[in-house]
Amino acid sequence: MTEEPQARRRDAAATKAALLDAAAALFAERGFDRTTVRDIAKLAGANQALLFRYFGSKDALFEEVLARGGREQIATTPPGELLGTALRSMLESDTGRDRTLDAYLRSTGHDSAAAAVRRQLGEEYAKVLATLTDADDADLRADLILAWLLGIGLVREITGKEPLASADPEDVCRLVLGAARTLLERSG
Amino acid sequence: MTEEPQARRRDAAATKAALLDAAAALFAERGFDRTTVRDIAKLAGANQALLFRYFGSKDALFEEVLARGGREQIATTPPGELLGTALRSMLESDTGRDRTLDAYLRSTGHDSAAAAVRRQLGEEYAKVLATLTDADDADLRADLILAWLLGIGLVREITGKEPLASADPEDVCRLVLGAARTLLERSG
Repeated sequence: MTEEPQARRRDAAATKAALLDAAAALFAERGFDRTTVRDIAKLAGANQALLFRYFGSKDALFEEVLARGGREQIATTPPGELLGTALRSMLESDTGRDRTLDAYLRSTGHDSAAAAVRRQLGEEYAKVLATLTDADDADLRADLILAWLLGIGLVREITGKEPLASADPEDVCRLVLGAARTLLERSG
Repeated sequence: MTEEPQARRRDAAATKAALLDAAAALFAERGFDRTTVRDIAKLAGANQALLFRYFGSKDALFEEVLARGGREQIATTPPGELLGTALRSMLESDTGRDRTLDAYLRSTGHDSAAAAVRRQLGEEYAKVLATLTDADDADLRADLILAWLLGIGLVREITGKEPLASADPEDVCRLVLGAARTLLERSG
């Protein structure tokens, strides 16, 4: 053997990370359909065989990309702050911003397994948001909040409509959280 | 001449209408990118040369499809009822429903001139909604309402997430209009 197993593990981790970064950037820019496995491997400086070995399929890689952004946020944010945190991370300036939502939104046009991944992630956000109200229709209210988040992302990042596209994140948060309070209030 | 000019005009109007219907159905189902001019002409039972003669280009035809749904609604609805009307027309059962929004949403993944058309229609909705509040940031508030409409369409029609996907339109309207009131209220 010419390599230590540990060094190989480190290489594998670095290659996986490079593939995820490349996939996240390309999915965000072009959407799921127009991103090829070949382009991802090329941008990551890895070969396609490794991509399939580490992730299994393009769909599974897409799921990992969404999971990295979305599921981490859900796991690390107190429920009461999830809406504000998700909004702020979406509204950050382009350089620092989490582009998970772009990948999500730019992939709305097709019906492959990626649609199931998107739905799944939506379920997870909505489940947390629904705990914030004790209304009988908590799940519907949570879906409406989720829809608002996605719509803001759509108008801001994809359509680029002003003034929303370059509005101060704090102004957006204040307005949205104020209106959302009427949906997610506890009666008790 | 074997035809009366009037009969020819009637034929032209019928062909234009058939092309618009076919385009609306295909754009809503597949999005802008995956709909070809050839498919539209075929579904309409017309030839491609007529499509180009009547509409000029695929982009111009897309604009007509959005205009027919969106601009008519803006022109014929009192401003104070626009949000409720737009929501209800979006939430109608599949058979009777205006599918303009599907065409809009399924075409978010690409950056052609159709993006400019989408932005333009958004401007028109937002301009009307902004007249409903006298807040200093009326335009931002209007954009947020527009974003909510689009997000609800996205979750309901494209992602198909329950319970929103099959919620009673009246329940959705009640919740959204209630929360939107805090954004679009006049102080005076």
